[in-house]
Amino acid sequence: MQARPFKVYKKSPDGSLSVPFKRIMLDELDPQGNQVSIDLYDTTGEGDNGHAGLVRLREPWIDSRNDTEVASSSFGLPEPSEKPKVAKNGAKPTQYQYALSGTLTNEMRFVAIREGVDPKVVIDEVASGRAIIPANINHPETEPMIIGKKFLVKVNANIGNSSVSQDIEAEVAKMKMAVDFGADTVMDLSTGRSIKETRAAILRNSPVPVGTVPIYEALHRVGGDPTKLNWDVFKETIVDQAEAGVDYMTIHAGLLLAFIPMTVSRVTGIVSRGGSIMASWCLAHHRENFLYENFEELCEIAGSYDVSLSLGDGLRPGSIADANDEAQFAELRTLGELVKIARRSGVQVMVEGPGHVPIHLIQRNVELEEQWCDNAPFYTLGPLTTDIAPGYDHITSAIGAAMIASYGTAMLCYVTPKEHLGLPNAQDVKAGMVAYKIAAHAADLSKGHKGAIEWDLALSRARFDFRWEDQFRLSIDPETARSYHDETLPAPAAKKAHFCSMCGPKFCSMSLSRTLREKSDAALAEQLDNKSAEFIELGAEIYITSPPVQRN
Amino acid sequence: MQARPFKVYKKSPDGSLSVPFKRIMLDELDPQGNQVSIDLYDTTGEGDNGHAGLVRLREPWIDSRNDTEVASSSFGLPEPSEKPKVAKNGAKPTQYQYALSGTLTNEMRFVAIREGVDPKVVIDEVASGRAIIPANINHPETEPMIIGKKFLVKVNANIGNSSVSQDIEAEVAKMKMAVDFGADTVMDLSTGRSIKETRAAILRNSPVPVGTVPIYEALHRVGGDPTKLNWDVFKETIVDQAEAGVDYMTIHAGLLLAFIPMTVSRVTGIVSRGGSIMASWCLAHHRENFLYENFEELCEIAGSYDVSLSLGDGLRPGSIADANDEAQFAELRTLGELVKIARRSGVQVMVEGPGHVPIHLIQRNVELEEQWCDNAPFYTLGPLTTDIAPGYDHITSAIGAAMIASYGTAMLCYVTPKEHLGLPNAQDVKAGMVAYKIAAHAADLSKGHKGAIEWDLALSRARFDFRWEDQFRLSIDPETARSYHDETLPAPAAKKAHFCSMCGPKFCSMSLSRTLREKSDAALAEQLDNKSAEFIELGAEIYITSPPVQRN
Repeated sequence: MQARPFKVYKKSPDGSLSVPFKRIMLDELDPQGNQVSIDLYDTTGEGDNGHAGLVRLREPWIDSRNDTEVASSSFGLPEPSEKPKVAKNGAKPTQYQYALSGTLTNEMRFVAIREGVDPKVVIDEVASGRAIIPANINHPETEPMIIGKKFLVKVNANIGNSSVSQDIEAEVAKMKMAVDFGADTVMDLSTGRSIKETRAAILRNSPVPVGTVPIYEALHRVGGDPTKLNWDVFKETIVDQAEAGVDYMTIHAGLLLAFIPMTVSRVTGIVSRGGSIMASWCLAHHRENFLYENFEELCEIAGSYDVSLSLGDGLRPGSIADANDEAQFAELRTLGELVKIARRSGVQVMVEGPGHVPIHLIQRNVELEEQWCDNAPFYTLGPLTTDIAPGYDHITSAIGAAMIASYGTAMLCYVTPKEHLGLPNAQDVKAGMVAYKIAAHAADLSKGHKGAIEWDLALSRARFDFRWEDQFRLSIDPETARSYHDETLPAPAAKKAHFCSMCGPKFCSMSLSRTLREKSDAALAEQLDNKSAEFIELGAEIYITSPPVQRN
Repeated sequence: MQARPFKVYKKSPDGSLSVPFKRIMLDELDPQGNQVSIDLYDTTGEGDNGHAGLVRLREPWIDSRNDTEVASSSFGLPEPSEKPKVAKNGAKPTQYQYALSGTLTNEMRFVAIREGVDPKVVIDEVASGRAIIPANINHPETEPMIIGKKFLVKVNANIGNSSVSQDIEAEVAKMKMAVDFGADTVMDLSTGRSIKETRAAILRNSPVPVGTVPIYEALHRVGGDPTKLNWDVFKETIVDQAEAGVDYMTIHAGLLLAFIPMTVSRVTGIVSRGGSIMASWCLAHHRENFLYENFEELCEIAGSYDVSLSLGDGLRPGSIADANDEAQFAELRTLGELVKIARRSGVQVMVEGPGHVPIHLIQRNVELEEQWCDNAPFYTLGPLTTDIAPGYDHITSAIGAAMIASYGTAMLCYVTPKEHLGLPNAQDVKAGMVAYKIAAHAADLSKGHKGAIEWDLALSRARFDFRWEDQFRLSIDPETARSYHDETLPAPAAKKAHFCSMCGPKFCSMSLSRTLREKSDAALAEQLDNKSAEFIELGAEIYITSPPVQRN
């Protein structure tokens, strides 16, 4: 039998689309004698993502819509070597605009199959702005995915270097580690000297949407001095990034000059990098945030490439003490205004959220975001539910992430164990991804997602049947599950044993419970009397099992 | 300055009690020029817990009450070498009975200082049954601690061997690892050949209350055949354990014969070891659970030693699919009856809870437990919020544990990464403890616990001040936090640097935000105009910092 998961494809009714899933074959036969399997959502993409060989799935779809053309000097920039696309004059090639006009795109059809829902749900949610499909026309390698409350909770993995640590290959390896563990998007947050090259390497190898925070590159372009920033430099930066294929951009346009004094009494001030850059600019010039003032023009640019906007929360709390304060909520209200402007421009938009929030204040964040931001998808960083565990913030924040997602947050930005301490390496990326896939999945279960429920059911049935190999295959990290089991019982025979070293053979409740089950029948309730004697006979056999020989 | 935390003692008003705390000195001066420090709850105990040298703190307290005597053959058992104590005829030396009769014991006074509350709160909560102080008169080494909704959320660490893995020294080492990371109680769940010796070694070295599940030893005594169990063997077992000093015992008396058929349609049947043993016995004899039928006599014994009862949930769900089902709740209702019986006997009692529960069904467990079990302290195992992550169940369950504790659960039984896969080793014990101290603390914050809030505040202030050493000292696992930081910036100078490798010097939002703060003053809001020019001057200095030299 097939031991490793493999890709299968679900076809659209007309056969034109093939949507990949990861199929896991189980050591189990259905009543018809066929081997049981389960198909899981898969983010790993098509083609060789080792080096610039990803399938450009969306290219023919984009071309066939005939509303884009080769970008020229529309924004006064030199053309890159590979000709990027831009909207034809007057066109608005965004998934939001298509949905509004009733056009069911291939991206929407693909997403519907991926999520196991009717395409009508997809187009309705996108048209209402409750969901977005980040899909820049210059990133044809993206397999379409949807971010919205009615769909599976998504996880973003932040990667990218800093000036202290720069290595493009390492960042691509982190991206691959992230998508192997189910990252739905990646954000390249590089701030080092090779921002552009790092981003290009990630984009051309990423089967998932790529996000950025363009203010980092803009700051780089003005020599690292935030007071030298201006709208023209920022505009050039986002056009460049849009033409390179960035699918969504974090824009800190809601941090207004008037809100900055609200942060003075905070314990941890402004903890968003973008937020602190914009606050510096505002104070230095004593002028309103230029991203706020030029937001309509910014939307024009975003709409020309179908760059989705992620409205950054530059004033998010950086400590439990600062959660849900005046500064945070003043900005959130402003983000609500910006959502309306983005939608008027036909631009897909989501809203970013905190951060550090104690358990009892989490739900309020979702309620206010939905109310003030007209149900735009919420995209939160954790939140961390305590500040006292540096080195374990993937756990402090997985708690908050699972909760906030169960209340309706659409995408979670992961936090790695290195948060607050250093730049994550590939192992940290894995640890962060696993914690966040757990959080997202726990929230999916709480929302009654059918596919999520089936996955848990398959694993628990394997557990009760002592199908150890199936437990490993179905687990979120098969290698780790297997290695933990094998630490004490490495013998191949132990993979069929009706116990593990946790309880040993005499005290395995599952084993005993299974025996009860096998020896009972549907009428157990009525027949307890008759069963009594039979059970005593069988009891000896169940319990007097020798302990297994230990091989090392 | 003192780099490592050290013990300090808070005295009772009359000077008779000294309650230990862990003091952490910070690199910070208060306005009077004194070094700032913070005192944290400490579970590590007094004296050499390396080998049978713990201080017998409670011995004089117990003796002075004059309601106990040397145990003779009251229960027909041979006396152990060290003479254990038992209640004098007619006496009921339990903290519950003392509280009911208005006697404020030293245990209660100790706990009040430890928790930072008025002793009246302690006696009231114990008298109402909403809190218990597990403190067997034969475990004088216990530093009194309290389990109840109004106090800090507690964490239990399960240790103990199975027949597949037996090593007494290793179990004592796990106990020490657990209390070093803040375990409030430990349960010895040994099922191997040396149950009694393992328990004795743990008890004599444990400064925290020790719990057991006596059915494991009873089963051992009848040769491992659950059908051979009977009340007499069980009674002998609990008397032996009570005389050895076990502070609380899990008793599966709520699993009734009539409930067993309710488990037949479950995905994972009965997953409690004790539950499956009792179910086997009930079915084999077709008789009611002998623990239920003899529960009053059992309470008589428990009350003679002040053994607290932990009413086991033998029918807890073992998978998401089985959560909150008929079997689970039928048993919970029965546990409510047993709570009343225990209290009538003057016995301290708490109630155990699940297990595997999806996020949206967690709160209901607390509501029903409080309603049906008359607010007895709730003590839950996790719950795990998904089944799909073997190898990471410390995380799947820390999510559920933080949530259920925020709703009012008093004690959390930790889950290690090895859950479902094998017996935890010392590193797994540490991983489980850290995850659960995070969960418990996150819940304490959500309940507004003053000491918990101060801890987060101290760490976040250290973070904003770039007091790296203080961040490490204040973190839940200083060694790990420091090692993660040092992976990229090991140089001593980096411990003073206003950035880490996560963002590098140019993009450190905290650094920028701090500069904003320093250059501003209280009247910032009114004086933005004047500050503008000043900030520009300072800007260059902030941002044009060279990256630090990397030392390796």
